[in-house]
Amino acid sequence: MSKLPVLEVFGPTIQGEGMVTGQKTMFVRTAGCDYACSWCDSAFTWDGSAKDGIKQMTPEQIWQSLKEAGGSRFSHVTISGGNPALYPQMGDFVRLLHEERIDVALETQGSRWQDWFVEVDDLTLSPKPPSSNMTADFEKLDLIVARLIDAGRQAHVSQKIVVFDEADYDFAKQAAKRYPQLDTYLQTGNPDVETADDEKLRTDLLSRYEALIDRVMADEEMNDVRVLPQLHTLLWGNMRGV
Amino acid sequence: MSKLPVLEVFGPTIQGEGMVTGQKTMFVRTAGCDYACSWCDSAFTWDGSAKDGIKQMTPEQIWQSLKEAGGSRFSHVTISGGNPALYPQMGDFVRLLHEERIDVALETQGSRWQDWFVEVDDLTLSPKPPSSNMTADFEKLDLIVARLIDAGRQAHVSQKIVVFDEADYDFAKQAAKRYPQLDTYLQTGNPDVETADDEKLRTDLLSRYEALIDRVMADEEMNDVRVLPQLHTLLWGNMRGV
Repeated sequence: MSKLPVLEVFGPTIQGEGMVTGQKTMFVRTAGCDYACSWCDSAFTWDGSAKDGIKQMTPEQIWQSLKEAGGSRFSHVTISGGNPALYPQMGDFVRLLHEERIDVALETQGSRWQDWFVEVDDLTLSPKPPSSNMTADFEKLDLIVARLIDAGRQAHVSQKIVVFDEADYDFAKQAAKRYPQLDTYLQTGNPDVETADDEKLRTDLLSRYEALIDRVMADEEMNDVRVLPQLHTLLWGNMRGV
Repeated sequence: MSKLPVLEVFGPTIQGEGMVTGQKTMFVRTAGCDYACSWCDSAFTWDGSAKDGIKQMTPEQIWQSLKEAGGSRFSHVTISGGNPALYPQMGDFVRLLHEERIDVALETQGSRWQDWFVEVDDLTLSPKPPSSNMTADFEKLDLIVARLIDAGRQAHVSQKIVVFDEADYDFAKQAAKRYPQLDTYLQTGNPDVETADDEKLRTDLLSRYEALIDRVMADEEMNDVRVLPQLHTLLWGNMRGV
């Protein structure tokens, strides 16, 4: 089977954000991204800094690596990146995990369609707001959402928007209105993905989280949303591999 | 229509715990409980301390109270207690909310069945662990879970267990095994529901949350669970009405 470029396999730990926040899961992080978000917390997946760490692995090899790290202590795997939706061959890995009775979550910005999207148990589409310096392709996202809805996958898909500022908030509102069929999650942005001062970061993140809550609570156009922090960042700061 | 004993109507705010954590919601808190958990964070609902604040309200009056507090800024209402499942007449209120196109969440320890359980959009059953000094009635809970499953409500029901110590953890494990059809949420206990030292409480809660995560991650018999903190307590300490 075709190989996938893998940068990290770790866990079990909790999923710290989004539609299955708190879920016990393993993580597989692929290298490569078609975006370069200004505040990306995994820029090593695309900025060249970790390119010597990329392993080209078959689905079976990734599965063995998961078993080495997690033993029998998991039943859920989260595939993240980078953008794991760059790879048509990811479907083989998703199917292998299902054969092993593992549930699969995957996060992508929604810039590319892959047929295997309909096989993912917890699919997060995270269109990137203005502060990322990227431009979300809503025509492409329309197509992706329509295909997922047509395939009856509504309960298995959500959208998640990171919010740093008022422009991001407006973007989130537009996205929530555009896809009322999907559960919408707003997430506090992490303003400093480099700092090792966990205490200061935690205080800052909770303060930003409270401000985002206040903004949403006051807004009658944003009623059916969920507002969440990144739990792993509150717990462990910017540490990798947790 | 029959009246309900109401102690608090507030919001909109976020749901800080459980199956719809982060959801923008209003809260209605009923008075009265058949339990008296040692660490209850809403003991005023049953210990007599707030008995002068109880209002006997019709569903229509509660709805008006919600509109006064929340205006048009909500589409979701959470009913909590006390134990709101003490009241057969609650079904009238749930139906009124649905007529107003409001989704309804409700939390109960699962000590009593009510026919209107099958109408609740997000029903949390929270059997109480040993540290509460209560004894969960699993035969009753078996009946409740079976009826909900038979009614096809699986996606609308979860169980949530508060964990303070190892005995609670064992209890949570038994509950997770007993009801594999339900999503199981483990929640960090709040060891001091009186303190006003938010900073110390926050540090303590995150430390307990991390310890609970560590415990679950190491346990191959606890794979398909979600481990969550109380977000509102991290944000606002023991403050009421948020």
